[in-house]
Amino acid sequence: MSGSYERLLEKLKRVHHLGTVAGLLGWDEQVHLPPDSADQRAEQLALIAELQHAAAADPEIGRLLDSLTPIDAAQEVVIREARRDYERVVKLPSEFVAEKARHSSAAYHAWAAAKEADDFTAFAPHLEKHLALAHREAAYLGWGDRPYDYAIDKHDPGLTAARLTELFDELQAGLVPLVRAIAASPVRANPGIFRAFPVDAQREFLHEVTARMGFDYRRGRIDVSLHPFCEGAGADVRMTTRFDVDNPLDSLFSAIHETGHGLYEQGMPLAAQGTPLGQNAGMGVHESQSRMWENQVSRSRSFWNHFEPRLRARFPAQLAGVGSDALYLAVNQVAPTLIRVDSDEVYYNLHILLRFALERRLFSGELTVADLPAAWNALSQELLGLTPTSDRTGVLQDVHWSGGAFGYFPSYCLGNMIASQLWFTVREACAGLDADFERGDFSRLLAWLRAEIHQQGRRYGALELVRRVTGEELTPKYLLRYLEERYAPLYLR
Amino acid sequence: MSGSYERLLEKLKRVHHLGTVAGLLGWDEQVHLPPDSADQRAEQLALIAELQHAAAADPEIGRLLDSLTPIDAAQEVVIREARRDYERVVKLPSEFVAEKARHSSAAYHAWAAAKEADDFTAFAPHLEKHLALAHREAAYLGWGDRPYDYAIDKHDPGLTAARLTELFDELQAGLVPLVRAIAASPVRANPGIFRAFPVDAQREFLHEVTARMGFDYRRGRIDVSLHPFCEGAGADVRMTTRFDVDNPLDSLFSAIHETGHGLYEQGMPLAAQGTPLGQNAGMGVHESQSRMWENQVSRSRSFWNHFEPRLRARFPAQLAGVGSDALYLAVNQVAPTLIRVDSDEVYYNLHILLRFALERRLFSGELTVADLPAAWNALSQELLGLTPTSDRTGVLQDVHWSGGAFGYFPSYCLGNMIASQLWFTVREACAGLDADFERGDFSRLLAWLRAEIHQQGRRYGALELVRRVTGEELTPKYLLRYLEERYAPLYLR
Repeated sequence: MSGSYERLLEKLKRVHHLGTVAGLLGWDEQVHLPPDSADQRAEQLALIAELQHAAAADPEIGRLLDSLTPIDAAQEVVIREARRDYERVVKLPSEFVAEKARHSSAAYHAWAAAKEADDFTAFAPHLEKHLALAHREAAYLGWGDRPYDYAIDKHDPGLTAARLTELFDELQAGLVPLVRAIAASPVRANPGIFRAFPVDAQREFLHEVTARMGFDYRRGRIDVSLHPFCEGAGADVRMTTRFDVDNPLDSLFSAIHETGHGLYEQGMPLAAQGTPLGQNAGMGVHESQSRMWENQVSRSRSFWNHFEPRLRARFPAQLAGVGSDALYLAVNQVAPTLIRVDSDEVYYNLHILLRFALERRLFSGELTVADLPAAWNALSQELLGLTPTSDRTGVLQDVHWSGGAFGYFPSYCLGNMIASQLWFTVREACAGLDADFERGDFSRLLAWLRAEIHQQGRRYGALELVRRVTGEELTPKYLLRYLEERYAPLYLR
Repeated sequence: MSGSYERLLEKLKRVHHLGTVAGLLGWDEQVHLPPDSADQRAEQLALIAELQHAAAADPEIGRLLDSLTPIDAAQEVVIREARRDYERVVKLPSEFVAEKARHSSAAYHAWAAAKEADDFTAFAPHLEKHLALAHREAAYLGWGDRPYDYAIDKHDPGLTAARLTELFDELQAGLVPLVRAIAASPVRANPGIFRAFPVDAQREFLHEVTARMGFDYRRGRIDVSLHPFCEGAGADVRMTTRFDVDNPLDSLFSAIHETGHGLYEQGMPLAAQGTPLGQNAGMGVHESQSRMWENQVSRSRSFWNHFEPRLRARFPAQLAGVGSDALYLAVNQVAPTLIRVDSDEVYYNLHILLRFALERRLFSGELTVADLPAAWNALSQELLGLTPTSDRTGVLQDVHWSGGAFGYFPSYCLGNMIASQLWFTVREACAGLDADFERGDFSRLLAWLRAEIHQQGRRYGALELVRRVTGEELTPKYLLRYLEERYAPLYLR
């Protein structure tokens, strides 16, 4: 029996290693690939994906799962989650997987062209096809009656559209008055105060910050790509950021966000790499880690009390005319924007509520693809107080739907809620964290996250993890309280 | 039938793609890998190697090869060479392959430690085991009576120890008087004239030079690693160099050498990538391409007449006190050294003759591993006029034997001979090449190499390729003539 269990772990690690190889090929594609090498890279990636699929669908995994009876809680988790993965792989016909991959590639190019041309109608048929594929995928997996729940569960096991609706409705009820009040405030942050920050010095500063946070540069690195991301696992975690000499906060906060993801990946038990005990607990939990470091930690007074003098030491001339209050306000700018990725952490949630509401209605059939742009624009006006001036700045702005990634957006907002709820818990569990941060010491926070979140792997889904760690059901009230406590003193004095 | 042929190509391309994935993992390991990620990389590489072996040993390849009758010369080449590869893969028991891989890893670490400790006896048992493995490998492939010929043929199909002995004896007879005469010359190059060349400017200059040579940076790149190398194929060729502010010629000539390899890889027919028509004709031919660009081209007067003013424009202060003759002499320094990789192009060949003579005697049993250091030192004195002061600067200096790579060294010298013989041919075929180089125009040379060498793929082994292209059997006389013409005017005036 124990031999069979070891054999199962071996099989799972094979799948994992192929995933990390594909991850490195993808990283290299974003960071280093010569301009005319994309076709060759696509062939390499397709072959590795095929081999990974074959490894994941290996019938021996099925036989081992059927024959194994877990002898402890750890084995129970591994077998339960391995079965979940295995069933997803074997229940999807390979023709379907190939069809979806082909369509995703075509839809991506159609989306990019439609966005460029600012013409949603050119993308609409591709989105319709993706919706049809999503319904078929759900049916293959036995979720034919609840296709959107399937899409959500795929990213965050245990979550449903109904549960998200409750959470998001409560969030919206508290958030809209807050953003209205901030919008009416005479206080305005000025991000234009940053000019001519040399890239090398920016790089050194963000390296200092992220190393302080605890990112282990002996088991990872940071490079530059057009869109920041974090990939890799365990002993080799690769993050990226991007640099703009007139916007040093963008590179810094992008790096801090990715470092949050990276700390999670580096924090999982190394010996369990490639098995469910060394894998993440879903997109929402992953995002909670990046968001907590990016927002709760790195927009705090105590964080900046430590790093402001260090920033000034590196950029004395650039910051000579910038007072501490102006700097801190720029770090905590709140202002509506049409573009999700440019949004501050307050408005950001409204961007997600918009997408969630539209996805839900698309899946239920209440909304047709043809009516999507108008619905988007109306909801944008309602939630953000802004109506897109174009498809490009509205319904076509995000890449996700071109890959058929429905049910993915909610996890961003889920991450914000989880981060806040964990934040109030850890501040009680570890009294005096602010004093730590003032000294540039994040070790107690990281140790707590390691023990409570990172080391748990995929043991629990987001809802159960939050319940166990915070002693309470997941609720948006901590996110609302956090935002109130951070932004009311700045904007609503 | 044509369907079967297409199927064979598909199968061969799978093997190739897995090889390119392994290549990229290896490149990344040398260029970017975080310090504590080596174990994870080793696991990834082992898995890809296993999958590549399985793809290469796919019994369907054997069935296709048995069933196919070539309908033209191209198919004949593909089927002949694919059979050669397939037989090598299937005739080696997988236990043997695993044993050799394990031993190579152990022997590599033992070699590194022995070199560090300057103690050959600590490495000796590992070398003995590698010799035994090499004999077994040859026997598996049906070369049990000629194990060293097998080792040579593996790198350069068609070459034998007997043929190399003839070639190298003739070379030695001509070379030794030349180096003796140069050693007796009062003329001395002074490489110490280069000081404080900033790395960024070095990088820009070598980028200018290598792009001029014709390297396509849309299908490749150059980075930095401890030991320069070139890997990749077709649409994605990755070279490396290294920088020393006080030795700009090292980074430049390393980059030019790797560019010679890179041009060969980029010059093979792209559509035939992954099949024998898109693969190289052996190590000796590959080396001939790097050596011709590094030596015949880039140490020439005409090359420097073009690039010297450009180098001076980038480094005006550093070169202010350096005259043209001193610069050109530094580029063409000839001086004995114990270390092969530090050697100039004249002495270099003697380093190879030494290694070849010792390998041949090790394989025949004339020489034991225990007696190897003494034999090395004696031959070093005889050929180079220098006796190693330590194992580290003698028998332990090279990594090759720690991986069991016997029969590899000769291809370096073979490459020098081929490069020279091609050089005299192309200068006749394309009159006025020197005038091209004076203008920084290498396009006619590259076009000739493309047509005569690169586009031929694996059609011909080194001996036949040389015969067809130059109209003459391979001979060392052109290498001797080239060295005489280059160095006599500088040192023997």
